[in-house]
Amino acid sequence: MDIEGFRKAGYAAVDSICDYYAKLQRNELPVASQVQPGFLSKLIPDHAPEDGEPWDLISSDYQSKIMPGITHWQSPSFYAYYPGNATFEGGLADLHAAMISNPGFNWACSPSVTELEIITLDWAARMLGFSEDFLSTSPSGRGGGIILGSASEVAVTVAIGAREKALSLMAEKYPPPSAADGVEMKAATNGAAQDGTHAASLPQDDQSQLDPDAAVAAEDSTSHQAAVVGENATLEAASALAKWRGELTSRLVMYGTTQTHSIGAKAALILGLDFRALEVTAEDGFALRGATLEAALREDEAAGRVPFMLVCSLGTTSSAATDNLDEIVEVAKTRPTLFLHVDAAYAGVALALPEVREKLYPKALQLVDSFSTNYHKWGLVQFDCSPLLIRDRTVLSNALTLTPEFLRTRHGDAGSVLDMRNLQMPLGRRFRSLKLWFVLRSYGLKGFREHLRKDIKLADRFEEELRNDPKFELVAPPAFALRVFRIRKQAANGELSASQLDQLNQLFWEQIQTRSAELLLTQTVLPQVGFCIRFVTGSPWTQEAHVVQAHRVLSECADVTLKQWSEKHQS
Amino acid sequence: MDIEGFRKAGYAAVDSICDYYAKLQRNELPVASQVQPGFLSKLIPDHAPEDGEPWDLISSDYQSKIMPGITHWQSPSFYAYYPGNATFEGGLADLHAAMISNPGFNWACSPSVTELEIITLDWAARMLGFSEDFLSTSPSGRGGGIILGSASEVAVTVAIGAREKALSLMAEKYPPPSAADGVEMKAATNGAAQDGTHAASLPQDDQSQLDPDAAVAAEDSTSHQAAVVGENATLEAASALAKWRGELTSRLVMYGTTQTHSIGAKAALILGLDFRALEVTAEDGFALRGATLEAALREDEAAGRVPFMLVCSLGTTSSAATDNLDEIVEVAKTRPTLFLHVDAAYAGVALALPEVREKLYPKALQLVDSFSTNYHKWGLVQFDCSPLLIRDRTVLSNALTLTPEFLRTRHGDAGSVLDMRNLQMPLGRRFRSLKLWFVLRSYGLKGFREHLRKDIKLADRFEEELRNDPKFELVAPPAFALRVFRIRKQAANGELSASQLDQLNQLFWEQIQTRSAELLLTQTVLPQVGFCIRFVTGSPWTQEAHVVQAHRVLSECADVTLKQWSEKHQS
Repeated sequence: MDIEGFRKAGYAAVDSICDYYAKLQRNELPVASQVQPGFLSKLIPDHAPEDGEPWDLISSDYQSKIMPGITHWQSPSFYAYYPGNATFEGGLADLHAAMISNPGFNWACSPSVTELEIITLDWAARMLGFSEDFLSTSPSGRGGGIILGSASEVAVTVAIGAREKALSLMAEKYPPPSAADGVEMKAATNGAAQDGTHAASLPQDDQSQLDPDAAVAAEDSTSHQAAVVGENATLEAASALAKWRGELTSRLVMYGTTQTHSIGAKAALILGLDFRALEVTAEDGFALRGATLEAALREDEAAGRVPFMLVCSLGTTSSAATDNLDEIVEVAKTRPTLFLHVDAAYAGVALALPEVREKLYPKALQLVDSFSTNYHKWGLVQFDCSPLLIRDRTVLSNALTLTPEFLRTRHGDAGSVLDMRNLQMPLGRRFRSLKLWFVLRSYGLKGFREHLRKDIKLADRFEEELRNDPKFELVAPPAFALRVFRIRKQAANGELSASQLDQLNQLFWEQIQTRSAELLLTQTVLPQVGFCIRFVTGSPWTQEAHVVQAHRVLSECADVTLKQWSEKHQS
Repeated sequence: MDIEGFRKAGYAAVDSICDYYAKLQRNELPVASQVQPGFLSKLIPDHAPEDGEPWDLISSDYQSKIMPGITHWQSPSFYAYYPGNATFEGGLADLHAAMISNPGFNWACSPSVTELEIITLDWAARMLGFSEDFLSTSPSGRGGGIILGSASEVAVTVAIGAREKALSLMAEKYPPPSAADGVEMKAATNGAAQDGTHAASLPQDDQSQLDPDAAVAAEDSTSHQAAVVGENATLEAASALAKWRGELTSRLVMYGTTQTHSIGAKAALILGLDFRALEVTAEDGFALRGATLEAALREDEAAGRVPFMLVCSLGTTSSAATDNLDEIVEVAKTRPTLFLHVDAAYAGVALALPEVREKLYPKALQLVDSFSTNYHKWGLVQFDCSPLLIRDRTVLSNALTLTPEFLRTRHGDAGSVLDMRNLQMPLGRRFRSLKLWFVLRSYGLKGFREHLRKDIKLADRFEEELRNDPKFELVAPPAFALRVFRIRKQAANGELSASQLDQLNQLFWEQIQTRSAELLLTQTVLPQVGFCIRFVTGSPWTQEAHVVQAHRVLSECADVTLKQWSEKHQS
């Protein structure tokens, strides 16, 4: 495709997106894709074509073959999972980013990519009410963050930093064998974070990347390590060090609750560490309490285990519960190895609303170690845009810095720039800040807040319908724009056991799924409650009429379910 | 921005991209951004605006404030790192993907996202000459892969799978304490990969995700685990299991060479494992030989260490060397714990050329465990698009599967679909296959091959200029479209030591950097050679005149350098 071909194809793509959004607005599309597994392999050959194909054909295949297999997360009647916002501003940013594509690993790759990220992270931190400590201009010089692809990527990245921080603190009490028995460990310890044989895990200052001498030393130790690891003495030393590291690491425990998103447990799984899911109760609104945490920490500490990270939820997936940060911060403050990460994947953007923020432990939130929220959920930016705010970014750079010769740059060596790759797992990275910048400028803080308030109001409206309908009950405290409900046991004939109530609601859920072209919701299980249904607003296109209609459909589904139930239990 | 606003803004964005590419073609833009660190914070306020701003202003700020900080990886005179291709087709795909944004973690999120990925992975595998074993339709039913964001993300992901595979093999000889001493480990082992307390690391069959009963059982064990971990007996068991796991894990060693990209060492760093960089020599063209590997494996095995993964390079970063896969496969075949991953980040796409493929160990390549190449380098697709081909994808799903209630789906439970989240670290994922599909269809295999051949020819042309210029010498075997060179010592007056030759070429490198508006290259260090300069073609816009001009500029830089050198050493 040449330049003029792109002009034509680009205009046509824009027009087709306009048509698509007009249909979405009119609610003319089935919300959930109605295709069956394997549909696409019947429509597309199993190998690439030998000759290039005309763009018109490719473009029309996109509409006729791909689009029927798309579930419309931007539909006004999408109430499932958590929202997946897309905006025109964000789409234009992704187009521009694609056309100036670069891997962004160093400042020098494209200075704007790094610098706009630092600036928009500060915008986001201020908008959500975070203190100076979380800004790139923090008094400590260590605040700031990075935009990653998802809250789950954030959780693993933070866990790596927290692990290394805990190990370096543990090393003070349980020194590595180099210090303990005089084995020559030089090659292995010098390399530390630079060469992968990092058993020593001694804290490296951020200056390792900002100080040219340290950068050069790191280079030297890498080659030194490579040169001598083949010698037996060093191999023994490396083995001893790895063993020491393995022992210390095996004591580490990550914490969450039974309601923490699985990204916590998966981060532990990825790193081969234990994850402990603490109990929460319906009485506490499914939020972690300080006493529960304290008891678990003491138990583990008594067993010689070392709590190294707690994933606190600000808006759990099942019920949008927020852990009691006031109590948690109090419990954590005497535990230097315990890193507090707040996973606010869905609800974090709501901190932009002062009336919400004041209820969400505003003081304690300033005392946690890190915080992340997905703008690609409720934050008007399309996937992927998950900024991580962190009080001390050297926790990440100490654990993740590696600089081979071919990645060295003049400014990197001089320490005058931040190379973002040292705060993340992968090397390359997308220009994600551009869409956040476009959106925040185009909407302004006012527009951003209006978007959130509109959705909360719509959720309230839906709740009103539910409360006026004797078939239903709310089973979790209303939170943000999520409402969790089910058919009440009183709606069925006769007395139902807890397990029967679950069965009834599972039947209800099956009924709801038959209407997935009209509206989409998802299910969950809450402790002490059981099986229930989630309803969350968030699409910029949803209006009052949509949520009223949603209740009507759900009411019909409940009627069908109750009729089936009654027939089955009379027969 | 409303629909009509987007139509106008979209057309304007397309027009501005057309203007940009016309300028690129005419080589009117400075290749490297000429801004200084911190430039952007002087142009952009430190907080988001309260009121929304007009699109025209935002759009013009993009051109006037962001674009000057962009290094043009698509410039015809970009010869640095490895190329970062962008195509109009890929850009249109990213625009469409952004406007139907969804997190893609399950098949049900948008069936087309999963199904097109499976199909295009097969297209890619066939195009590069891989056997049936690496296709989704493999005889084993376990072949296929996933498109991740970068080769570095691939390396970590594969390492997690390889680690769990090795541990499960080691567990046969060193069983976990549950079997050894009769401790009640049920909660901890049942959960296995489902609950994060996965010390047992017993192999789970892929069916865990494809079998509804297994999926339900997994659910049960998760809540069971959460319920009983607070009891002392289970806490003791969990500690014992973690200790056992820590001991086994500390024996694991990942291998690469001194020339392996730092993504290998970084994967080990992330997972807290040892990385051993084996020596390669200039005589062997900087490629790993079987005898070197064999010696290292024996040494480690004798010390009780367990080799669990080798990152083989097909096209190293410094010199595009390819490790001797024939010899490596032979050495590895008696080591069941040793997972062979081929990192072909840059050069893998060149397997689309039969004349290249036949020289790159075509038989051995069918015997490795996994392979990845970045289409966002030389493969005409913009960042990010890094397909991983794997012979047995259960190596990944066994290590990475977690299914909480809120992620369960009808088709997922029924085992009729593949949920891609179980093959990767994060939960959410972009619709990356769309751009690969658009590009392969629009170019066809013929067009794709022509693009690669053109660049190799241009590199040959540049090499011809170098060879005719007595100031320069090639210091690595020409490979793909990369040429590595430096000023010869004979070009300077008097006899130079190796260290002086390095100094001379570092001066040369400084000279080259002063011309970064005209052309961009990067530097490296090769063993036995020292400091040298890399030149790689790859931009679709580069023509013969550009590379001839590139030599002319480099020749001027060398002249200035030699003059300075001579003055300094005469004085």
